[in-house]
This record gives sequence, C-alpha cells and structure tokens, in this order.
Amino acid sequence: MFVRNSWYVAAQSDELGAAPLGRLILGEPVVFYRAGDGRAVALEDRCCHKRAPLHRGRVRGDCIACGYHGFEFDPSGACVRVPGLEQVPANARVRSYPLVERHRYLWIWMGDPTAARPEEIPDFHTNDDPRWAQTGTRLPVAADYLLMVENLLDLSHVGFIHAGTIGSDDTGAAIRWDSSGAQVVGVRSSIDIDTPPHNRKQGFAPRCDQTKVMTFLAASHVTIDITTVERPGAAADAGTQPRAMHIMLLNSITPETATTCHYFWSSTRDFAIADESITRFFHEMTVRAFDEDRVMIEAQQRIIDLDPVAPTVSVAGDLGGVQARRLVNRLIAQG
Amino acid sequence: MFVRNSWYVAAQSDELGAAPLGRLILGEPVVFYRAGDGRAVALEDRCCHKRAPLHRGRVRGDCIACGYHGFEFDPSGACVRVPGLEQVPANARVRSYPLVERHRYLWIWMGDPTAARPEEIPDFHTNDDPRWAQTGTRLPVAADYLLMVENLLDLSHVGFIHAGTIGSDDTGAAIRWDSSGAQVVGVRSSIDIDTPPHNRKQGFAPRCDQTKVMTFLAASHVTIDITTVERPGAAADAGTQPRAMHIMLLNSITPETATTCHYFWSSTRDFAIADESITRFFHEMTVRAFDEDRVMIEAQQRIIDLDPVAPTVSVAGDLGGVQARRLVNRLIAQG
Amino acid sequence: MFVRNSWYVAAQSDELGAAPLGRLILGEPVVFYRAGDGRAVALEDRCCHKRAPLHRGRVRGDCIACGYHGFEFDPSGACVRVPGLEQVPANARVRSYPLVERHRYLWIWMGDPTAARPEEIPDFHTNDDPRWAQTGTRLPVAADYLLMVENLLDLSHVGFIHAGTIGSDDTGAAIRWDSSGAQVVGVRSSIDIDTPPHNRKQGFAPRCDQTKVMTFLAASHVTIDITTVERPGAAADAGTQPRAMHIMLLNSITPETATTCHYFWSSTRDFAIADESITRFFHEMTVRAFDEDRVMIEAQQRIIDLDPVAPTVSVAGDLGGVQARRLVNRLIAQG
Repeated sequence: MFVRNSWYVAAQSDELGAAPLGRLILGEPVVFYRAGDGRAVALEDRCCHKRAPLHRGRVRGDCIACGYHGFEFDPSGACVRVPGLEQVPANARVRSYPLVERHRYLWIWMGDPTAARPEEIPDFHTNDDPRWAQTGTRLPVAADYLLMVENLLDLSHVGFIHAGTIGSDDTGAAIRWDSSGAQVVGVRSSIDIDTPPHNRKQGFAPRCDQTKVMTFLAASHVTIDITTVERPGAAADAGTQPRAMHIMLLNSITPETATTCHYFWSSTRDFAIADESITRFFHEMTVRAFDEDRVMIEAQQRIIDLDPVAPTVSVAGDLGGVQARRLVNRLIAQG
Repeated sequence: MFVRNSWYVAAQSDELGAAPLGRLILGEPVVFYRAGDGRAVALEDRCCHKRAPLHRGRVRGDCIACGYHGFEFDPSGACVRVPGLEQVPANARVRSYPLVERHRYLWIWMGDPTAARPEEIPDFHTNDDPRWAQTGTRLPVAADYLLMVENLLDLSHVGFIHAGTIGSDDTGAAIRWDSSGAQVVGVRSSIDIDTPPHNRKQGFAPRCDQTKVMTFLAASHVTIDITTVERPGAAADAGTQPRAMHIMLLNSITPETATTCHYFWSSTRDFAIADESITRFFHEMTVRAFDEDRVMIEAQQRIIDLDPVAPTVSVAGDLGGVQARRLVNRLIAQG
Repeated sequence: MFVRNSWYVAAQSDELGAAPLGRLILGEPVVFYRAGDGRAVALEDRCCHKRAPLHRGRVRGDCIACGYHGFEFDPSGACVRVPGLEQVPANARVRSYPLVERHRYLWIWMGDPTAARPEEIPDFHTNDDPRWAQTGTRLPVAADYLLMVENLLDLSHVGFIHAGTIGSDDTGAAIRWDSSGAQVVGVRSSIDIDTPPHNRKQGFAPRCDQTKVMTFLAASHVTIDITTVERPGAAADAGTQPRAMHIMLLNSITPETATTCHYFWSSTRDFAIADESITRFFHEMTVRAFDEDRVMIEAQQRIIDLDPVAPTVSVAGDLGGVQARRLVNRLIAQG
C-alpha cells in the first residue's frame, strides 16, 4: 500500500524531548526517544512481551523500558533486561528503524534496513542553514497523503481554495513537467510580472521575473522553489547585477494510515532573515492557507470513501499529480 | 437496498437559500443550489475532477463552481468551464437528478430520470394551501427509515412511548387495512367519542365522530388524515349541517444511509388557521412526541445492529407496517 | 468466543433499584429488573415484537412491559400480555437467564440454563460477611477482559505501572503456580519482611510473614488472598499466639464485548472493620491503581488491534496468565 524503501519525515527535531514519543507511520506504531547522548532512536512501539506501547515507558540511559513490566530495549531493538529474570529470552526484541536527524527533522526508513542510505535523504538544508530563515509546523490531516501531494503539485487550485487568503489566478501560466528517476519536476517561468509585496518591501523594483520549480521527491516530499529576480527599473544603472531572492517551501507528507497523514511544512527564505515580522507573516499566511487545503481535502476524502471507484476526469493541470501517482505506484510494485 | 424510482423529499424549500446545500440521499452525495432564476437544482455532490464535494463551491449564475479548481457545472450536470482550459473534456460531467419544488418541499427522483413524472408527486397541497395552517421541520434520525415508517403506521405505540405527552390508549379501536398499487391505507372510525380539547376550543359540541386515515405512499411518505365531525348537542337545531375539522399530518422519511434518515414532518389543519397559539401548540407537541419516537427508534436500531437476524413476532397492530414493507420489497425487486 | 457455561458478575446489587437496567454481557443485550418481591430477574433486552430494548420499559408487578407497545414479559421470559390482543401469540417470548443475587452481586449464567448450578458460584462471602469490611465499585474498561485477568495474575507489573502509587518491586519473590479443574492458583510466601504500614497501624510488630494466594476462577474471577502474620518482636511473650490479618481482593471481569469489559472489584478485610478512614484509604488507593492499569491495558488493546497476530514472548512471570488462557480456551472448546 505504501512505498517502504524511502525516507519519511517522522517528526520535527524539537517534537522529541526527554519523553518518548509514539506515532503511527505507514500504519505501524513507532516509538521515538533520545538515547543518553541525545541521539534519536526509532523502535517498534509494541513491547514483544504483552504488546504494550513502549511510548508509555521510560528512557533509561540508551534504552527504553516498557511501562508495563519493565522490559528494556536498546537502540538496536534487542531486549537487554527483563526484571526478575537472569537471562533475557533470545527472541525478545522489537523492530528498530533506521533514523537520521538532519535539517531539523527526524527521517525514518520503514523498509529494508540494509537498503537505507542516509545520503539519499532529500537536501532540506535551507531548514537549518543560518543564511536562511525558517518557519513551519506539523499539521494532522484526515486524508490519504497523496491527496495532499496532488494539492501541492497543482497551482491551479490557488485561485479557488485560497481566494480569500493568498489567492491569485495561476491557471494561465504554462508549466513544463518532467519525470525522471524518483522525481517529478514542474517549472513555471513568469517574465516581467508585478513584483510580490514581500519582495517590494525589500526594495525590489516594481517588475520582476519569477521561476517556480515544484519537485516531487518520491515518496512523500514536495518542494517549491521560488526565485524572484528584479528587473532593471527605468532608472537602473546598467552596470548593476540584478538582485534575486529565494523562497523554498519544504513539504513532507507522511502517511499515518491509509486515510490520515502527518503534514510537515517549512517556509524558508534567504532574504530579510532577521526580520521576525516577515517570518510571522509567512507563518500565519501558510497556517491559514494550509488549513483551507486541509478542510477541502478532508471533505474530498469523505466523498471518496462513499464510493472509492467513482470515475474522474483529468486535465492538463493534473499532469504533475498524475506523474507523481504513477511514480509511487511503480515504486510500490518494485517492492 | 432502496426504491430508486420514487419521489423523495430532499429538503424543505426554505432550507435552500443562496448557498449550496450538500446532503446524502439514499447514500449518495447530492448538492442542491438555486440557479439564477431561483429554480432549485440537484447534482451529484462530487466533482468529476478530483471528487471534491460541490457543496463547498459557489453558485455562478445558473451554474455551480467547484471550490477546489473551479470546474463549473450547469443544471444538466454538464461541465461547461474548466479554468485554464480552452476546451472542456467531453466526458466531464456529474449526474443530475430530477428535482421539483412543490408544496414547500424539494422533491428528488433518485432513479431512472426518464421515468420521473412530476404528476406522481404526492398531493401535499395542505402544506402550502392558504386555507390551511402549517407547522413542521426536519428531524435527523439515526435509524433505518422503515423503522420510522412502521412507527407512523402503528397507533398502538401512542399509549406507551407517548404516555407522558400525547398518550391515549388507541389499541382498542379496529383499523381496516387495504393495500393496492403503491399505497397502503388504514382507516379507523370512532363514533360518538369525547371531542378532543383543540376541537372543543373551537366551539365543538362535547361529543364527536372521528375518522383517521393513515396512508403509506411508497416509498417514503405517511400521511395521517384526521377528520372530526361534531355530533348534534342536546340543544342543536335539527336544520344545521354538522361541522367538520381536519388535521392532515404529512410525514416524509428519506433514507440518508441504510441506518440513518431525514424525517420531514408537517402538521396542517383547516381550522383556526390564524391562531398562532394553536400552531405553536401543535408544533411543540409534535416536536416532543417525535423526539420520544426518535429516542426509542434509535435504541431499537442499536439492538437490531447487535443481531440483525434475531427473530420477531408480528401481531394484528403491525398489519400496516407489514404491508408497507412488503410493498417496498416488491418495488425494490422491480428495480 | 466466550465461555458460556460459567457464572459472571452482571452487576453490583445496589446498581439495580426500581428502574430496569440494560447491559451487554458477552455481547448480548440483557435487561435486569426487580420483580414485585424484590427478586432480580435477567431477560433478553430485546422485545420479541419490534426488537426495542426492554430496559426502556417499565416494571409492572413481576413483569416488565416494553416501552414501545407494552408487551409484557414475566420472569421466565414468556410474553403474558399484548395490549389490544385477547390471545398472546404462542411464540412470543424472550430468553431468560439464570440469575442469582449473592454476596452483594448479581450473578448471571449465559450458557445452557439446565447446567446452571448456583452452588458453583464462587465463595465471595467476604463481600457481605459482617465480620469483614468491604469497599469496591465497577470500572468500565475498553479492552479484552483477558488482558485484565492477565494483569491481575501478574504481580511483576506493580513496580512499573504503579511506581507512583502502590508500587514495590515484587519481581524477586518466587510464585508457585498450580492449575487443576477450573482454577489456576499461585502462591507466594514472604518470610520475615517489613510489616506493611496498614498492619503496623493496627499494632503489628515491625516484621511479619506474608502469603499471597492468587486464584483464577474460570472464566472471569481473580481473587487475591493476602495473609499477614506478625512475627514475635524482641519483647514478645513466648506464650502468645501470633496475630494474623487478612485482605481478600475480589475481582470479577465480565466481558461486555470482545474488546470491552465490566470490571467489578471489592477490597475486603477482617481487621479494623469499623475504621472508615482505612476503608477510604483502600478505596482511593485501589481506584487510583486500577485506573493506572486501565490506561495501560486500553493502550495495549489499541496496539493489539493494529496487528492482532504480532508475535509475543512469554517469561516466567506470565505463568499464571498463560495457564488461565489455556483453561479458558479448553472450556470454550468444551462448548
């Protein structure tokens, strides 16, 4: 049902403190905790003894002890202590999951552990690069995660769902879509358009060129890379290099179950990074806009549940989403 | 599971204003809206693009635009506009349902549209006849709609469920039941009985004759027609025609799902029609009584859910309900 | 799924007053009421007419009348009156269940009525013996009742779940388990240990011997019999018989459905029986401790629901629970 051999965002780094954290990922119960040295660990959240959730237990050094009978598991998932027993049974263990903490996220690998390569974790460096400002959070959504992926790969909804917030009619501009490997990339270039207010505020000229690159990184990430380049004004000095500003939206949508997901988003930028008011503006605008998406997508899920095989019609604007679903299905078939 | 070729009440007229209304009818999502000229339209509440519910969209002239990507559908269900596309895909459409606004209700036909004949809509003229007063509302009930139909065709429960409100022991009087075509009719005549208080209040003599005609109009309507005729008092002038008053209870119970329904009721009368206090009395008494029914019937549904095939015993008082179920099953079998 | 030929606790005596009480037992709806002479009766909580729950009806003498149409059933389950009918249909009846009121509980037999022998009801006399003090209540738990049975037969969880309340590490002491007939018995003797505070308060010497006898009485009862015997102090008179105090914990866990249960507990003791503060202490400590169990066990059930066949590992401390499950499965297989 899900692509297993893939890196998913399991949590934001700051969600995991001293207490264990339990979360369903791809329908499986996973417990996260920090070992003695602060390293994050992911284990099956089901004690091999009585199937109590380990997240109700306590961290003890590098291990986590079940809250029911005190069975202790080390970061490899091996049971290393059973209170009252001299000898731990040989088969006493829980599954452990490869977990990497990077770019302020915990990245989990739910598939074959021998296939896990941390170098394949998407480059989300803008999420902790000091030359960038960031703001983001986690949003629980009661819908199939691919409905949210589709939503992000499709700018044509902006003028409708977000009519009252960030809306503008984007349907007119052409997008080139390209799929190769485990990516689907869409590029839209807008030449000589009105400069957005937040760029104007930084002293940009009234007109600009803008490029949006939307990238689906299978199985669960959508980045939106927005580059705005100032056009020389009437009074511009010919010898000046045109200035550019970047916004990088990082979106990771991790399946919780077949019909619910964890939506992690971060809005990052490389301009006015110390200006808290801009950070707040991006945060609040995104919270509002994504909540509008959530409401629509949860309603969509309820309609789908009524008749999961009702036929649909695709149009040009769906190309990114169609390619993303095709890619996901191919990866699932590969096992 | 349901009779499809039948007129169901989908909504009260005044439930549908300028905003679209979404409602499940026979388990199908239906959106209702008013076209530019005020005419009510019923379409499949599932955009053919991404299956978003159209009731979250906006009315534009005679059309409704999906709130997700702006696909617009006309009253026939044809998609007439896709933002950003020159040409609408030929197969882009949603189902449309025959809908008639009459007698202050919206009547929907969920079956074969070519078989829909508005002249077969039940005669509920007392619901908007100026010579009659009306009061009523919609009550959601978490039970199979046929449990409510049975309840209405059976007066023997009145002395038990409604012991504290309208209760009187009706079990003594005989009812003649007759089934023909798409109707089941029960008649009970009571000769020389005490005149009910609301008739006494209008100056009726202390004794009267009363006839109750209960009619099940398949698949979902039960009317109860109560005629009260004054008996000549001791001092009555032999030359005077006996006075009569009528109460017509209009009940329409529309399946929402297999175990939930929309119960529309209206209490109409042809006497003291300008007397608001009588209208209020009938309204409040009915709200209280039907809520007593609702509580019992929802409890009944929960017991049925525990063991749907537990055997039951029928008695004489069930005759109307038994005939109604038989009729419904015959109509379902006819397809 | 359940052992049927067994006595289950259905309710505490004082839960059943003048009004009928409806409760699911082993997934079946049962109504309890008191006949005219106060005797408790248990019938199928589903009228044979329209399947309304009888617990919404009224007691009339020795009978219960359905709240929908007034069908009356006597304590044998026979329908003895149908309002409006001269003759009650011969097959009009509901199931009746053997029910015995004893030791302040209502004991129900859900299996073959001819096999019900009241003399096989467990001896819970300490629950109403005037030489004992009692306190207890009913706790609804959203989990398979056997998870609670396992919990009670296993003292090794005390130091973990109850670390903050009654916790002490009991994992060190050996328990002898023995299974015979319809019982599983575990005995643990502790020689020359610190006397518990509540025994000290009664004047006991600082050291004592203690015996705990845990008994699983199939299919649903676990008693814990704690005997504390004073050891002679340094200044003890050699001619004095050592004093003993007893605590008897009566636990009955009745399945409501496959994944919910009614947990009845009573803490009884034969010392300081008039001391309300001790009664209150035992009550409050037990309420707190069992709520800690409930939280863990409900979490355990949710994890089990995610993957009911996930493998588990057993250790020595599980011996009582393993024998109890084996016994229950054997009794189910015997039918």
